[in-house]
Amino acid sequence: MDRESGRIDGDRPMRWNGWGDPAHAKDLPLAVRALLPLLLGRTRRPADAVELMDVIVAPSTLTAEDLAAFGRTVGPEHVDVTHEARIRHAGGRSTPDLLRRRAPEQRVPDAVLRPGTHDEVSAVLAAAVELDVAVIPFGGGTSVVGALDPDRGAHRAVVSLDLGRLSGLIALDPVSGDAVLAAGTTGPEAEALLNAEGFELGHYPQSFRYATIGGFAAARSSGQNSAGYGRFDTMVTGIRIATPTGDLELGRSPGSAAGPDLIRVFLGSEGIFGVITEVRVRVHPVPQRRILESWSVPDFTTGADALRRVAQSAAGPTVIRLSDEAETAVSLAQLGKIGKVLAKGASIVTVYEGDDIEHRRSRTAEILRAVGGTSSGESDAEAWLEGRFDGPYLRDSLLDAGVFCETLETATVWSALSSLRDAVTSAIREGFAAEAGARSYVMCHISHVYPTGASLYFTILAGVRGDQLAAWEKVKARVNDAILEAGGTISHHHAVGRDHAPWLAQEIGETGVRILSAIKRELDPHGILNPGAVVAIERTGRTD
Amino acid sequence: MDRESGRIDGDRPMRWNGWGDPAHAKDLPLAVRALLPLLLGRTRRPADAVELMDVIVAPSTLTAEDLAAFGRTVGPEHVDVTHEARIRHAGGRSTPDLLRRRAPEQRVPDAVLRPGTHDEVSAVLAAAVELDVAVIPFGGGTSVVGALDPDRGAHRAVVSLDLGRLSGLIALDPVSGDAVLAAGTTGPEAEALLNAEGFELGHYPQSFRYATIGGFAAARSSGQNSAGYGRFDTMVTGIRIATPTGDLELGRSPGSAAGPDLIRVFLGSEGIFGVITEVRVRVHPVPQRRILESWSVPDFTTGADALRRVAQSAAGPTVIRLSDEAETAVSLAQLGKIGKVLAKGASIVTVYEGDDIEHRRSRTAEILRAVGGTSSGESDAEAWLEGRFDGPYLRDSLLDAGVFCETLETATVWSALSSLRDAVTSAIREGFAAEAGARSYVMCHISHVYPTGASLYFTILAGVRGDQLAAWEKVKARVNDAILEAGGTISHHHAVGRDHAPWLAQEIGETGVRILSAIKRELDPHGILNPGAVVAIERTGRTD
Repeated sequence: MDRESGRIDGDRPMRWNGWGDPAHAKDLPLAVRALLPLLLGRTRRPADAVELMDVIVAPSTLTAEDLAAFGRTVGPEHVDVTHEARIRHAGGRSTPDLLRRRAPEQRVPDAVLRPGTHDEVSAVLAAAVELDVAVIPFGGGTSVVGALDPDRGAHRAVVSLDLGRLSGLIALDPVSGDAVLAAGTTGPEAEALLNAEGFELGHYPQSFRYATIGGFAAARSSGQNSAGYGRFDTMVTGIRIATPTGDLELGRSPGSAAGPDLIRVFLGSEGIFGVITEVRVRVHPVPQRRILESWSVPDFTTGADALRRVAQSAAGPTVIRLSDEAETAVSLAQLGKIGKVLAKGASIVTVYEGDDIEHRRSRTAEILRAVGGTSSGESDAEAWLEGRFDGPYLRDSLLDAGVFCETLETATVWSALSSLRDAVTSAIREGFAAEAGARSYVMCHISHVYPTGASLYFTILAGVRGDQLAAWEKVKARVNDAILEAGGTISHHHAVGRDHAPWLAQEIGETGVRILSAIKRELDPHGILNPGAVVAIERTGRTD
Repeated sequence: MDRESGRIDGDRPMRWNGWGDPAHAKDLPLAVRALLPLLLGRTRRPADAVELMDVIVAPSTLTAEDLAAFGRTVGPEHVDVTHEARIRHAGGRSTPDLLRRRAPEQRVPDAVLRPGTHDEVSAVLAAAVELDVAVIPFGGGTSVVGALDPDRGAHRAVVSLDLGRLSGLIALDPVSGDAVLAAGTTGPEAEALLNAEGFELGHYPQSFRYATIGGFAAARSSGQNSAGYGRFDTMVTGIRIATPTGDLELGRSPGSAAGPDLIRVFLGSEGIFGVITEVRVRVHPVPQRRILESWSVPDFTTGADALRRVAQSAAGPTVIRLSDEAETAVSLAQLGKIGKVLAKGASIVTVYEGDDIEHRRSRTAEILRAVGGTSSGESDAEAWLEGRFDGPYLRDSLLDAGVFCETLETATVWSALSSLRDAVTSAIREGFAAEAGARSYVMCHISHVYPTGASLYFTILAGVRGDQLAAWEKVKARVNDAILEAGGTISHHHAVGRDHAPWLAQEIGETGVRILSAIKRELDPHGILNPGAVVAIERTGRTD
């Protein structure tokens, strides 16, 4: 493993203006190419994307003295003001981020700092307060909610704090199944390190190959195996944090009543209170066996009811997900099985890992059969498993073809799930029609289930021929309003960042925002940390 | 159900100076009486306890104007300044509380207020700020950590805010398995209301018969069925809170990444940030079947290892608990089976409720047999189930007999559990010997298991012949130091109150305390809410 770059062998740095490793780019399957004009009408190929070296950025506002001061915290070789580094840290990987990466002029941080230890993180924060420079913590760079925008707030400059050098397995307690990982460790690095000891974390969000342990914690990530191993926030048993005004080390025992659980203050804080430098997580032995099975169900509603019964009976799948009719059809088209579409309705993927898998499979199967589901064996589930990290590659190909593509997600209680899905679908369709005169195709799946409710994940294609970014901003605002109106959460696992921040007060109330602001003022009184993310900036400057 | 008193039929108000219903008082079994002198030496019967009407209390410092002002918030009939009401709200039910209730002079609140709605709670808080009066939220009155002490802090007076009238099932979503309960609803009331709809909560802490839903939330309670249904904080899906500076209503979906989970700020806050008025909880259908089984294992260490394997394999018991050799011996003595003691070693109780119980039982049994456990059938488990709420009654009888009796608890990761148990046991034994020249008998059980660790619950008997309260304060301080030194949490489910507050900073750090204080200042800037609980009082007075 190359600790310096923070990437395991074979994982090259992510494309600067798209997803993942260019070598893995996925062309649109022929069937999908054929479908698109039918679904969306004629689209327009965008202008060629700009090359990295041709991007125009403002010169860094940091002086030689500033850079020397930061050099004293992380070592001069880890203060990076190169054109490439600044552009590579200019944002996350939402579709708006990618559209911005196609523009000739781009907003970028004034420098990239790469601390190698917790103490170096603390030193950077102290220096940043002293120099009046905003700091954007940067893990894998996969935020899709604008959490990485180089926003300087009221400060002189802004630096990206790349945590990639904080990488590694710091401790493993094999008896307790408890591991401490450095925050900048990526998903594949964490699994490789744990696997070598016979353990795994089992956290597989779509960003897995690039996102980091600290990012999973900061954003309250949830992965594909959440039915079996839980959301990331339920895996976290401890946390170490550097703030501008002091450090924290939390998490002594799996259950505690020693006041409010302060770990939860930092899970979901997206770097506005402090920088997560280490995360303690629950791990489990690498499962030795696995069963895959896919199912067809007549329709989404029937399938959702089945998933509810599975979640409420704790039947025990590791993965369970339901694709609606629209998503099922496109998945089949991708697999060249378009002819099967009409026969399929909605579809379910199940995976069972670990102990007792036959029994868990048979309990789940009983529930699925009872609602009219029919097993279609392993192959579709296997195809899902193989392609499960490829969605973002397809998005790049769609964008290249001039098709707008983005995802969004929410969650609510089971009883409100259908009406929330309808509300979001309508807001998207009507939004694109009204704001851009565009046709759209909306797919939905459930991929995270709980006894009391579930997530809804939408994939959207739209034939926007004009300014896609401007159109999407308006549609997304309509969708956010619709989600809150229908009782959903503004985000199930993408987090708040800057994109959802204007809607947060509607969800947690003004008093909730005041609590977040009070914590922010206490820990980061100068407001240098990720200004504008999660809660509105308080432009207190340096004088308070 | 008598909504006015907040008690279901048959549950009389709790003894003012002991536990529970006087009609259910438990005499010490003969075998235990015979054992005590052997274990502890000769004890001394205490002086007769004072009668309620003879207790001397300071006159209420509230003026007629004050009382009229509070009367305008809750109705004059719900402002209670009677001698009995004030004494009944003078504290919780720790052994120090009960020893204080035996003294001729007692510290009591200046009045008891009984709001009937959320808005009345808000109005009380506004009036209290206006009048400079501290407010102690009071649910079932079962705190064992001093959370109910009538501490006025820097204020003119202190009132107890009895939430018993906020009682009832406000909403039930049977599809999602989600119920909203008023905060003052007691455990039995909640179960009766839910059972009538086919559901249950399944939260059975020892305080179950008196404690309230709001109290469970405020103290991060954990019940006997936690292996099956989780700690109370994991059952909470939403919460409504009145604070002196605004209300909150939190919890839109079971999973969310909409910033930090602010519900968790209030779980464990013990009334210092606001008053919980409603709690939304996950409920499940009343289980139709149950299997009980008890087991003998050679010793505590072997048993703990077995519980770890059960917790890590998610084998699925609803209840699993391990009593060490000392607790097993005394339990058997209580059951008149003292002869079996030497044969028994340590003992395990298992209960399986709900679906799939034979399979879950057989998976658990396989693990227990593998460590050398032998099933002893149903009877001991049934005896545990029947007597499980009786511990506090026995404590009253022990105190009457001059035997000091108290419980305390902690938790840690599995790998540190044995050393934590040894450290606590030594601190207790050596503490009583050094501070009071007394012999003590220490029993321990594990009753809450997690994949990464477990709780330890200690029951302590000591033959203290002098001032029991003074001796215990010194021993308890030694134990708290030992717990933190050995890596345990200062409380697994009893919470912090005033008794553990001086140790909290060692667990969460000064930065952690600053976070709690910042939230406190924001929501309760005058510091009227439960001054001195959880975090040290900030005597800001009314001028800030």
